[in-house]
Amino acid sequence: MKIAIMGCGTVGTGVYEIIKNTPEMLLKGAHGEEIGVKYILDIKSFDDPAKEALRITDLNLILNDPEVGVVVESMGGLKPAFSFCMQCLNAGKSVVTSNKLLVAEKGEELFAAAKEHNAAFRFGAAVCGGVPVIRTMFYGLAANEITGFAGILNGTSNFILTKMIREKMSNAAALELAQKNGYAEKDPTDDIEGFDAARKTAILASIVSGRHIYPNEVHTEGITAISSEDVEYVSGVNAKIKLLGRGEKQPGGQIYVCVSPAVIGADDMISSVEGVYNALKVYGSNIGQIMLYGPGAGKDATASAVVADVIDCVRVPGFDTAYCWENAVENAVLPYEAYETSLYVRGYANDKKRAVAAIRERFDDVCFLTRANAPENELAFITDKRPERELRAALEELDGFAAANVIRKI
Amino acid sequence: MKIAIMGCGTVGTGVYEIIKNTPEMLLKGAHGEEIGVKYILDIKSFDDPAKEALRITDLNLILNDPEVGVVVESMGGLKPAFSFCMQCLNAGKSVVTSNKLLVAEKGEELFAAAKEHNAAFRFGAAVCGGVPVIRTMFYGLAANEITGFAGILNGTSNFILTKMIREKMSNAAALELAQKNGYAEKDPTDDIEGFDAARKTAILASIVSGRHIYPNEVHTEGITAISSEDVEYVSGVNAKIKLLGRGEKQPGGQIYVCVSPAVIGADDMISSVEGVYNALKVYGSNIGQIMLYGPGAGKDATASAVVADVIDCVRVPGFDTAYCWENAVENAVLPYEAYETSLYVRGYANDKKRAVAAIRERFDDVCFLTRANAPENELAFITDKRPERELRAALEELDGFAAANVIRKI
Repeated sequence: MKIAIMGCGTVGTGVYEIIKNTPEMLLKGAHGEEIGVKYILDIKSFDDPAKEALRITDLNLILNDPEVGVVVESMGGLKPAFSFCMQCLNAGKSVVTSNKLLVAEKGEELFAAAKEHNAAFRFGAAVCGGVPVIRTMFYGLAANEITGFAGILNGTSNFILTKMIREKMSNAAALELAQKNGYAEKDPTDDIEGFDAARKTAILASIVSGRHIYPNEVHTEGITAISSEDVEYVSGVNAKIKLLGRGEKQPGGQIYVCVSPAVIGADDMISSVEGVYNALKVYGSNIGQIMLYGPGAGKDATASAVVADVIDCVRVPGFDTAYCWENAVENAVLPYEAYETSLYVRGYANDKKRAVAAIRERFDDVCFLTRANAPENELAFITDKRPERELRAALEELDGFAAANVIRKI
Repeated sequence: MKIAIMGCGTVGTGVYEIIKNTPEMLLKGAHGEEIGVKYILDIKSFDDPAKEALRITDLNLILNDPEVGVVVESMGGLKPAFSFCMQCLNAGKSVVTSNKLLVAEKGEELFAAAKEHNAAFRFGAAVCGGVPVIRTMFYGLAANEITGFAGILNGTSNFILTKMIREKMSNAAALELAQKNGYAEKDPTDDIEGFDAARKTAILASIVSGRHIYPNEVHTEGITAISSEDVEYVSGVNAKIKLLGRGEKQPGGQIYVCVSPAVIGADDMISSVEGVYNALKVYGSNIGQIMLYGPGAGKDATASAVVADVIDCVRVPGFDTAYCWENAVENAVLPYEAYETSLYVRGYANDKKRAVAAIRERFDDVCFLTRANAPENELAFITDKRPERELRAALEELDGFAAANVIRKI
């Protein structure tokens, strides 16, 4: 089976190298069928003459070549990736992508085209890089109703939080270090504001709900407001702050979807996930919970997930109704403020005694936290568990207390 | 598609219940094909009239019924499970089993029969219960050379070690508690001597090496020699003792396979796996490492892994050359004493000063450990890394020092 690679940056190059350098490794999975790269679609020329010899700039060569069965999309972005993928699917080619934006924004249309032309559309590398979370949810847990998930889906923000927790770095210093190490972009917005995690969360939520959930339906908060004070307070109760993407089926059929920092007890395995690693907990009706852990990025790891999908396309050709979701519906997502949670709150009081009394009056079983050398008027506490809307309203009404940061506790 | 269940104990009942109670949940994975239980082969009658109505005692009814496409083997043991499975495969029925003994001892013959009759043979529930480790190694990591694995594969022994570590229980008291909680059998030999983990390790090693590795080729040590003293010494260097099943491809083509207690640093994610949970780290040429974590036993979790395999048999019928290994070869396994490791050693000296000097002479970079209130003549240390044979020989030659326990350090 011949494949084409569209866009040969980091991931595309990784895919090219795995297929070129270790073709015999892929034979078993592909039932003995040899997999080879026939075209690389890219506008930039390559220094490597072997790669350059495969380079094309005209998509039609791929579309019209009956030898090409699978097309890898590793261009990133939506333009022209979406249009190119649609043309490939419409030409009956299977498409494998690592492009989370594409899947999160255009999954509906892509699945429809794939189905119509009996082609596969796979995207295992789009969430958690090399860790096979997508196929595990679709296949490994096929005998479960998946009821929810919680994941560390962005390595950059987890690196920053890890440095803040383990080395008491400030948020700004940890970001700078992440940039120096190449873990964060010069413009880190996508990572630290949670947008990257929100795309992945939308994909996972789509799998869980069986309906397309769009990134703009995911309530999203990043890690920029997390301070060393928060880290310190939380570590005092043997907990950690992690940026989590979460989804949870609700009794009424809606799904709760949220990306935000979360206070997690140290007993929870996911709190042990450090540095740029990713992890995903999946909850199932029969399994209880499982967790998958590993590298969420990196050329070879991500490329190996793409190639595993290519192998699947060869091993099991055609559209796979087990690996898709249905079109979006209205009101699929629970308004996040209706979800029951506890909140960690740090803030400042005019009169500490009066503020403590007011907090105790408004919240049941409130737990006050301590840290060394806190300013006299600083207060931090964890509330009872109620719909978030009620907790936020109660916070607003606290006389002489101004919340500086609020983090969900799970 | 109709299925038959052979042996309806805990797992078989779980399989029956999932298929009976949530048939619509399975439709998507099975590409819309309804899955139903037609026969339950069991010698004991059931109180439940619905189950009793399906009960048969004659295997031929299954073998001769063209409606039955998949047979679930959940009898356990080898007799008659092996013969029954062979007859099913020879009749062209796909077989799904949760029986690790069967797979570890008879995989060769079963794969051969499955291949000959183009039937599937799957055993996802045989290792780590509900956690999809087998399919991840065969499919999810298909674009990796899997170079090794390390796993907590036995929940009972991990429960005992967890109680020893977290609650300072003695080994004996922790075993008693495990028995009281139903985690350990009345005769706990299989769990605490490592035999159960060795079967699972043999299966995983077979996947890694691509050749059948038998349980008697797995060097196996249990946890019975682990004492509270060992736990204490090791926690002093921020490490834990876990029973690990390990496999590692060697440069010459052999595989190192071992089940034994191991001293693991607290930074290693697998050291955070507590209680009856299982976890498996898999090392791949492109992925680096991933870890899967979850319930290693339990009726519903294990049954859901079996049913996921049944769904696969329906979704992708026939023998799967991507999901098998080749026949065993001679000398596939590296003699464990040739493998390079460090050792943790606890022992007793006649003359402590002289013993310390002798230890320093025999081992480079030796690290002595401490614990509170240790007897005057007790010594514990971690050796340098060398072939185990050399380390053992050096230990033997230590004048005036007798080792009481030796644990591999990774």
